[in-house]
Amino acid sequence: MSYEPINFAQKFSLFDDHWKPRVVAEMNDYQFKVVKIEGDFVWHEHEDTDETFIVLDGQLRIDFRDGSVELGPGEMFVVPKGVEHKPFAAEEVRLMLIEPRGVKNTGDAGGERTADNDVWV
Amino acid sequence: MSYEPINFAQKFSLFDDHWKPRVVAEMNDYQFKVVKIEGDFVWHEHEDTDETFIVLDGQLRIDFRDGSVELGPGEMFVVPKGVEHKPFAAEEVRLMLIEPRGVKNTGDAGGERTADNDVWV
Repeated sequence: MSYEPINFAQKFSLFDDHWKPRVVAEMNDYQFKVVKIEGDFVWHEHEDTDETFIVLDGQLRIDFRDGSVELGPGEMFVVPKGVEHKPFAAEEVRLMLIEPRGVKNTGDAGGERTADNDVWV
Repeated sequence: MSYEPINFAQKFSLFDDHWKPRVVAEMNDYQFKVVKIEGDFVWHEHEDTDETFIVLDGQLRIDFRDGSVELGPGEMFVVPKGVEHKPFAAEEVRLMLIEPRGVKNTGDAGGERTADNDVWV
């Protein structure tokens, strides 16, 4: 039989909202999520896990308390666990997040920006 | 301070050999590896873990005992643990592998195609 790959562009065509990660695949107890972001997010950290950002389209900046990193398409960064960070996108960015199942987008901060978890697309 | 992202194109510029995965980042006990492949590999499986393939350039086919999947740039596939598979690339493919630290490229098969593990670039 012919199996189907996961196509990022096709997945991004299925939603338009920002800051709402959608799961596209799982590997053991980790999830691959696609998300569109634009503007500023909240400062937060993930106490128990690293978090991986891979930029697929656009220019992402991740601010830290002591600096920042800028990522374009074809670039990635792993934010270590326990490190406060705040993503920022002047224009829309399409990115992939990789992290253990159950991680909330707002980490320890919580609040109104917290997205529903384990939403698949 | 300004942190540096991991740039896939830059990493691929640093080596030319095939079937030799290089680690570019770690997330908890998982590793992100880049590898160039061309031609046929050996049938193998990973008994203890799923394995993620993300194609960055070229056309990859992964054969299974009951079929296959074709992946192009911007596509991914997670091979479930315990499922025999054999990657194939008619022309050079640049891809990213994501799997737990310590996973061998030839899985249970071993043999002369087994690459050194935990080689960073």
